[in-house]
Amino acid sequence: MEQKMLEKYAHLLVHAGLNVQKDQEVIISASVEQYPFVELLTKTCYEAGAKEVRVEWSFAKKRLLDYTYASAETLGQVKPWEEAKMAQQAEDCPAMLHIMSDGPDAMNGMDAEKFATVTQARQKVMKPYRSKMDGKYQWLIAAVPSPEWAKKVFPTLGEDEAVEALWREIMRTCYVTEDNDPVTARQAHDRYTMAKADWLTKQGFASLRYHSANGTDFTVELIPGATWCAAGETNSTNGAFYVPNMPTEEVFTSPMAGRCEGTLVSTKPLSYNGQMVENFSVTFRDGKAVSCQAEVGQAVLEKIISMDEHACMLGEVALVAKESPINQSGLLFYNTLFDENAACHVALGRGFKEILPDGAQLTVEEAEQRGINDSIVHVDFMVGSDDLSIVGVKPDGTEVPVFVNGTWATA
Amino acid sequence: MEQKMLEKYAHLLVHAGLNVQKDQEVIISASVEQYPFVELLTKTCYEAGAKEVRVEWSFAKKRLLDYTYASAETLGQVKPWEEAKMAQQAEDCPAMLHIMSDGPDAMNGMDAEKFATVTQARQKVMKPYRSKMDGKYQWLIAAVPSPEWAKKVFPTLGEDEAVEALWREIMRTCYVTEDNDPVTARQAHDRYTMAKADWLTKQGFASLRYHSANGTDFTVELIPGATWCAAGETNSTNGAFYVPNMPTEEVFTSPMAGRCEGTLVSTKPLSYNGQMVENFSVTFRDGKAVSCQAEVGQAVLEKIISMDEHACMLGEVALVAKESPINQSGLLFYNTLFDENAACHVALGRGFKEILPDGAQLTVEEAEQRGINDSIVHVDFMVGSDDLSIVGVKPDGTEVPVFVNGTWATA
Repeated sequence: MEQKMLEKYAHLLVHAGLNVQKDQEVIISASVEQYPFVELLTKTCYEAGAKEVRVEWSFAKKRLLDYTYASAETLGQVKPWEEAKMAQQAEDCPAMLHIMSDGPDAMNGMDAEKFATVTQARQKVMKPYRSKMDGKYQWLIAAVPSPEWAKKVFPTLGEDEAVEALWREIMRTCYVTEDNDPVTARQAHDRYTMAKADWLTKQGFASLRYHSANGTDFTVELIPGATWCAAGETNSTNGAFYVPNMPTEEVFTSPMAGRCEGTLVSTKPLSYNGQMVENFSVTFRDGKAVSCQAEVGQAVLEKIISMDEHACMLGEVALVAKESPINQSGLLFYNTLFDENAACHVALGRGFKEILPDGAQLTVEEAEQRGINDSIVHVDFMVGSDDLSIVGVKPDGTEVPVFVNGTWATA
Repeated sequence: MEQKMLEKYAHLLVHAGLNVQKDQEVIISASVEQYPFVELLTKTCYEAGAKEVRVEWSFAKKRLLDYTYASAETLGQVKPWEEAKMAQQAEDCPAMLHIMSDGPDAMNGMDAEKFATVTQARQKVMKPYRSKMDGKYQWLIAAVPSPEWAKKVFPTLGEDEAVEALWREIMRTCYVTEDNDPVTARQAHDRYTMAKADWLTKQGFASLRYHSANGTDFTVELIPGATWCAAGETNSTNGAFYVPNMPTEEVFTSPMAGRCEGTLVSTKPLSYNGQMVENFSVTFRDGKAVSCQAEVGQAVLEKIISMDEHACMLGEVALVAKESPINQSGLLFYNTLFDENAACHVALGRGFKEILPDGAQLTVEEAEQRGINDSIVHVDFMVGSDDLSIVGVKPDGTEVPVFVNGTWATA
């Protein structure tokens, strides 16, 4: 990809996405394999006025070796200095820019049981600090292609061509073109999804009913007074507006935890920490996932659902029209950041307390009492299809079509 | 470089160099640009029985941006969690493998004053922990070529050819060939330098006198009862023998701090944290560097000498015969790890308490009282030349030729 386009993309991420403020501390997390783009991002953050930019490097191949050779006890142990670092972070609330690039199969072969044990042990220590930061810092997840990921999306292309093709898709779905101002283009698009979110909030639906010929037959209750969100959020500490996902097409809220019934059938594969789950369905009873069937990755899916007490409940419902540029590409990205913006989806696990009007002020426990699910996981899976219909049911029983044949019922 | 050779080299570093023990923790520090070799090293450490392998990634281009944009105050501040991490390290004494790869000009343009301020501030907090670890952990510094470094050593070659040529030199100087066992080859060579070290220790010289036609005219006092070292050292905690530099050709000791006179003329450039110092001389009076002249990098050299109170005194004198394979290559590596093993050298700053027979048991303060210099810096510079003569003077005044015309006076 040409340097000029990379610079425009970095500018978009730092200004319209993370919205770095003067004298703010920034933490970039990225794979070591993406060091050239990290250099550009670092420079862009400093030019935007960052006080200090730190990078947390990851390396999937090294992590796979850790899981192969080191014990779950060793890997699951949070060292006192790691906890001190997390505590400091929860105090300072730096802006956090996460670059995704690994291929969906990066962690294939990893023992799902061991991964769950390690995650549970680490999250037990780390989660209270993460919860403390909720809503108080700017964050952004964006993508850069690795050869492995690009070859998965474009299996018939050579490695360099595949990377170039994936770069073009990332630019297109983030509205970065040769001759536009991507920040302005992004903001224009965000106004459309934010208008949809406002409409949904004003309807005040008590529940949503999903139906598709693929077997999806599902009802979920919503939280009275909860808002629907799109595109951006506001950092409650400094008032900075940021867009935490790029691309983003979804309009979403957190449903009432423990109040849903029926079956959701997946319409796209799920890549969870480098492990694939494909062609699956999840059945809920009394708000909890009570069974699941996956053609590929059954053990991984079961582990997700049983990761902790509330991983079996929903934390998010999100609506995405089939006209989404990600869906229109016809591509499967094998990456939730993209695929979740191609289709309606739900997430198992942690919800967003920010969707409550007074959410930023609530502790995790208070938000939980109001119906926001809490868990160490947040795993999206896609249920949108070309024939998906969603009906909104008001408290008085009135029914309003929300989605018809995979898109908004009203323009 | 072929995978088989890389594997032999990694095996040499992990087994003959660091000598990783069963259930030992290992920390690898390396540039993000070297991630493929780090993957191989990690696997080799785990196969050798490491309990856990952590990687501390560095990235010179990002560091240069830090020095360009962030304040000295921000960069010099050691966060509480960083100190906690260092304290933990000083407690656990993990094995530390440092991979050098950056080009000598990597930090060109960095403000030497700012760098000194930041280093002083950080070392003030960090140094007590480093001192606490002295002699209690295995460590190794070894090299992997980056394109920038390779092009500096082989300026007339293309980038790929230069990297390949530098790999060949690294393999050759570390005694790794297609068909040998590099661990055995290494050990055979180490016996030669260790015999020289034993001979010097037994001579019990009170001082050494250096002379060369280039202007070097210098005398340094030695510490009574101190030993000379070569090749390897023993971790006093677990008894593991390790070789902390690869390649290594030097026979060295720490001289009596504050007891030297005269002028040393450099015979190779010095690359200090990515900044070059070339064609320089340093004059000592009453054991302290009182003046220095450099054609290139005068400010950098002055900063080194004044980094702290004892940076102006010597911590090391080392003898390397002109037959060294590094010297025989006729190449200038622009990297101290190589160039110091091509020629006799001295180091400004910190000495080695391990050269005292009871050194491992001494605190830094106790070692200092016995004549071992202490400083936050340890900077080697080369003074060996084809005509260098070194005469050893015994306590009774007897003179014994040690070096004649740049090599050992006796075989």
